[in-house]
Amino acid sequence: MFNIALFGAGRIGQVHAVNINNHLETNLYSVIDPYLEGAQKLTAAYQAKIQSVEEAMADPNVHGVCICSATDTHADLIKLAAINGKAIFCEKPIDLNLIQVRDCLSVVEKHNVPMLVGFNRRYDPQFRHLKEQLGAGTVGKAESLIITSRDPSPPPAEYSEVSGGMFRDMTIHDLDMARFILGEDPVSITAHGSCLVDPAIGEAGDIDTAVIVMHFPSGALATISNSRRSGYGYDQRLELHGEKGLLQAGNMKENLVEHWGATGCISAKPQLFFLERYEDAYIAEWQHFADVLAGRCQPACSGVDGEFALVLAEAALESMKSGKTVTL
Amino acid sequence: MFNIALFGAGRIGQVHAVNINNHLETNLYSVIDPYLEGAQKLTAAYQAKIQSVEEAMADPNVHGVCICSATDTHADLIKLAAINGKAIFCEKPIDLNLIQVRDCLSVVEKHNVPMLVGFNRRYDPQFRHLKEQLGAGTVGKAESLIITSRDPSPPPAEYSEVSGGMFRDMTIHDLDMARFILGEDPVSITAHGSCLVDPAIGEAGDIDTAVIVMHFPSGALATISNSRRSGYGYDQRLELHGEKGLLQAGNMKENLVEHWGATGCISAKPQLFFLERYEDAYIAEWQHFADVLAGRCQPACSGVDGEFALVLAEAALESMKSGKTVTL
Amino acid sequence: MFNIALFGAGRIGQVHAVNINNHLETNLYSVIDPYLEGAQKLTAAYQAKIQSVEEAMADPNVHGVCICSATDTHADLIKLAAINGKAIFCEKPIDLNLIQVRDCLSVVEKHNVPMLVGFNRRYDPQFRHLKEQLGAGTVGKAESLIITSRDPSPPPAEYSEVSGGMFRDMTIHDLDMARFILGEDPVSITAHGSCLVDPAIGEAGDIDTAVIVMHFPSGALATISNSRRSGYGYDQRLELHGEKGLLQAGNMKENLVEHWGATGCISAKPQLFFLERYEDAYIAEWQHFADVLAGRCQPACSGVDGEFALVLAEAALESMKSGKTVTL
Amino acid sequence: MFNIALFGAGRIGQVHAVNINNHLETNLYSVIDPYLEGAQKLTAAYQAKIQSVEEAMADPNVHGVCICSATDTHADLIKLAAINGKAIFCEKPIDLNLIQVRDCLSVVEKHNVPMLVGFNRRYDPQFRHLKEQLGAGTVGKAESLIITSRDPSPPPAEYSEVSGGMFRDMTIHDLDMARFILGEDPVSITAHGSCLVDPAIGEAGDIDTAVIVMHFPSGALATISNSRRSGYGYDQRLELHGEKGLLQAGNMKENLVEHWGATGCISAKPQLFFLERYEDAYIAEWQHFADVLAGRCQPACSGVDGEFALVLAEAALESMKSGKTVTL
Repeated sequence: MFNIALFGAGRIGQVHAVNINNHLETNLYSVIDPYLEGAQKLTAAYQAKIQSVEEAMADPNVHGVCICSATDTHADLIKLAAINGKAIFCEKPIDLNLIQVRDCLSVVEKHNVPMLVGFNRRYDPQFRHLKEQLGAGTVGKAESLIITSRDPSPPPAEYSEVSGGMFRDMTIHDLDMARFILGEDPVSITAHGSCLVDPAIGEAGDIDTAVIVMHFPSGALATISNSRRSGYGYDQRLELHGEKGLLQAGNMKENLVEHWGATGCISAKPQLFFLERYEDAYIAEWQHFADVLAGRCQPACSGVDGEFALVLAEAALESMKSGKTVTL
Repeated sequence: MFNIALFGAGRIGQVHAVNINNHLETNLYSVIDPYLEGAQKLTAAYQAKIQSVEEAMADPNVHGVCICSATDTHADLIKLAAINGKAIFCEKPIDLNLIQVRDCLSVVEKHNVPMLVGFNRRYDPQFRHLKEQLGAGTVGKAESLIITSRDPSPPPAEYSEVSGGMFRDMTIHDLDMARFILGEDPVSITAHGSCLVDPAIGEAGDIDTAVIVMHFPSGALATISNSRRSGYGYDQRLELHGEKGLLQAGNMKENLVEHWGATGCISAKPQLFFLERYEDAYIAEWQHFADVLAGRCQPACSGVDGEFALVLAEAALESMKSGKTVTL
Repeated sequence: MFNIALFGAGRIGQVHAVNINNHLETNLYSVIDPYLEGAQKLTAAYQAKIQSVEEAMADPNVHGVCICSATDTHADLIKLAAINGKAIFCEKPIDLNLIQVRDCLSVVEKHNVPMLVGFNRRYDPQFRHLKEQLGAGTVGKAESLIITSRDPSPPPAEYSEVSGGMFRDMTIHDLDMARFILGEDPVSITAHGSCLVDPAIGEAGDIDTAVIVMHFPSGALATISNSRRSGYGYDQRLELHGEKGLLQAGNMKENLVEHWGATGCISAKPQLFFLERYEDAYIAEWQHFADVLAGRCQPACSGVDGEFALVLAEAALESMKSGKTVTL
Repeated sequence: MFNIALFGAGRIGQVHAVNINNHLETNLYSVIDPYLEGAQKLTAAYQAKIQSVEEAMADPNVHGVCICSATDTHADLIKLAAINGKAIFCEKPIDLNLIQVRDCLSVVEKHNVPMLVGFNRRYDPQFRHLKEQLGAGTVGKAESLIITSRDPSPPPAEYSEVSGGMFRDMTIHDLDMARFILGEDPVSITAHGSCLVDPAIGEAGDIDTAVIVMHFPSGALATISNSRRSGYGYDQRLELHGEKGLLQAGNMKENLVEHWGATGCISAKPQLFFLERYEDAYIAEWQHFADVLAGRCQPACSGVDGEFALVLAEAALESMKSGKTVTL
């Protein structure tokens, strides 16, 4: 049984708490959060203890850390965990600053601890199945990947600053997904952005609608279609065109009940947002981290992947601002 | 070019007028309808002539008749046409009275003219495709056929008397479809009915909701699910379960545009009613009659099929009234 | 925390073990199974203890029992649990013999313990949602309910004897579902059966294909379509036609990835069988039992429901054998 | 009745011949084609006459021309028809050379004859319905348009030269569609291309896979996804994201029959190619030309639209070659 110290008792921390508890090999050992009330709710529900950062890092009973705290605390926590020999699971991003990221990864490497970066969508059973079908040759060589990723509704404009902007916050998942599905690294990126959803986002210097095109060494093209507001839930789709046809991963709907009536045939919207849509992905991600903890495998999504996604996000920003394709 | 005399310029007559005109081998030669204004609209549009029943039947230029007039005129027109050596296309039913039907068929047989009874659904490309797949062994031996047939909205209660009741008027299509798809004749029939849509229909001695179960010699079961009112258009589906799986013919929708929004994902309703849903079926049916006229084939749906469907409708009525299965 | 004694460590017992463990209010306390190896696997995984029937029933730490053992042990275990004041969850059926069922229920009633009968489908989120929509008036008054329930592949012919035959074993779920959805008890039942899938099943005196029609006091009709072999997974659908339209609960597929290629557009089959299809239903069912244990509600599916379903199964058998509608 | 001279008796000429014949206001008067055998087949089927270009242009009985001949003959035929006062329907493109196009349009303008350019997809009932829904405010202001257009299989490499390359030949439809749906003209275009399908196409200096992004004055973005080979039929889809949701026009499949079996749920492929997919569009297009002939309306797709589409195709080419966004 591996004891896990959970940093951050917020929305995503609560998701991981459930999965840590339900997994037969992991135990929610302690919760660390400056907002004590949130931490206490979790420790009460799961018979865990409250710890400070220092206590958790120094506690030899802690085998792994699950970092779900605010983005600007990630790098320090990763470094502390590495120094203290804990296996690391960290929610994306490692940091919004590429220099910080690289510094952080060098510490992890030096201390040789396993580290898994939480690009949750890689574990989504639908996308996995699509990738497996591609790998099995179902549609031959990949030619065009089309990623649709649209949030249900926009964040407050203030969020743009905290989040590092749409490319670093939201598109970063899709940039990682393109590398994950195609299994190669892009050679160029061209980004187009627009502020259509909320003028305040534009005033904050950010965009809310984007199209990104990447070229890959094999000649394959990837297109990402983003919006901060779909109006109908979380729109998360993949389309992979290959030599012999198409693989398509559609949206998961809130339910399968259809109502046919005077106004048409109505089915449910896509699941609302990431907590619902990627519930199974989070479980599978944690299963993977348990495999890493048990030494059964290496992290499938390492710090280098986290770094690469950030590099792409910054290149997209540069392309959008310059109006030119950026070669990588 | 075959000259066609069209009896009846109503809704269904107009459908056939278009198809007669568009077919390269047939010509709308004359229209016969006591309601002169309706007939004149068609003759003006298609450069055809107005005729009386007697004129049309006596006219040697008329090669075939297309009978789309009121049900109670069918039998007489069929007999006249047979006596005058015209090829006969007649909308279902031949007559509501089985003795009349048999009398009528004997005249047709005696004069040895080709006769096609208009069970339009047999020519529907979707149902044809399902039947071909079944014939090709895609799902092995047929085991269960489920026919869903629901009208968009109920007819006026007065119609029950004219139409001979729901089984003779509406279910008759499904009874014929079961024989058509399974390629065998049922050995028993059990019918359940209810008046749920409009109490006036019940007062007129008719039903508006029904379930019919038939056993076939091969052991296959057919279930028909009927209603006079769907609330969402014309619901016309087939499900054929066989040894190796299922063949399903779904509804055709009014269009393929989906609207995803706050209230869900809305697609169009099924096409409104038979004129829309079976537009292609009517064209294919007329193509088949042109093939019959040209001697390229025998009528695929003969008077005997029309008779059998009526026999089944009457057996269903008897079963519903007696609460017992009727052996055929 | 409620301690649960689990009787039966087989396929369905293992499902409940996971759910007992994952629920924050219940604890897998002990496992009772004559096949010791199976029991030990569970006790090892969940830190539970092995007990005998007698030990578990006598143990004051046991708050509730979860009966997943062989059908012929259900009645005795229920009675023992009732006498010992344990809350009871029992997989369906209570017993195959109606007299035994009634005897058993009288013991439960006498000792006034809560008892939940495991008609798992009642907790399926899809069917729940359909029922809620019906209750909310989305389609007005219910008119026709169509239940499709087809197993992926037939059980061995020997199973017919153990299971009490298809109606008592398989259709019983659909009979209960009809009552659950429509919220009323049928007034008559007519059953049709055929042995089409496996002749050995017929030789064992059972059927493998069936259509059942029930009339309800409101005039509503319910049709059940059953087969022991679909050829494409577990086919579990509901269709509810009401005054204002249709509510349809479709199948859950193994995944949402579509492959479009030379042979067509291929999507995944329905989930294989009940363990996959009703995974969420089992979780919700256990949540409900936890609510019962905590005194937050009464069992939504009581012994009387279990009894009624068996009454209907026997009436269906009588109808099929006699070829007549059975009035209830 | 308007008499039509049909230039070109090939594949697309035959489509128009059927529609000219079936329309009650138009008459296939003559066919002009240097390949006499093809012309004769049509004249025999429709009781039309063979004419030379000169005869047809000089014939006062000819009210309109339908130009379906080789692309390099379009401009001359248009000019001749204009000079002779005939109403003009011309298949796209007017010409592959922009100077020729402008010269041609000035002649048409001078002689003041109505001219309709055959961008057939504008008349497709599905795309029309989507545009109407957008116009009706169903999803509010348009934000992102995504056009998927993939041919079933690539043309021979030699075709690249004749056709003017993929952008001028194939993408031109999508460029026109973007203007048609959004109702505004783009301000910039960025094009990405790859030769992935057939190396011979690359050797001929053309591409077979492309992504094009356009910005519109309103801020809306349009993305076009093209391939010369889908592997599963003609993939023709529109997705319009607006303020309040999504409008999606999916593919039309060859039939609606689904086969559920051991390998999954198989439905039909999209209709094979443009003759099948746009059958209804061609009929509606001809109806529109009949309206123009009868003076009931002006051409909805004029020579200027044909010119604009070519301008966009050339700008796309320039963008792809330069690797820069082209401002319009």
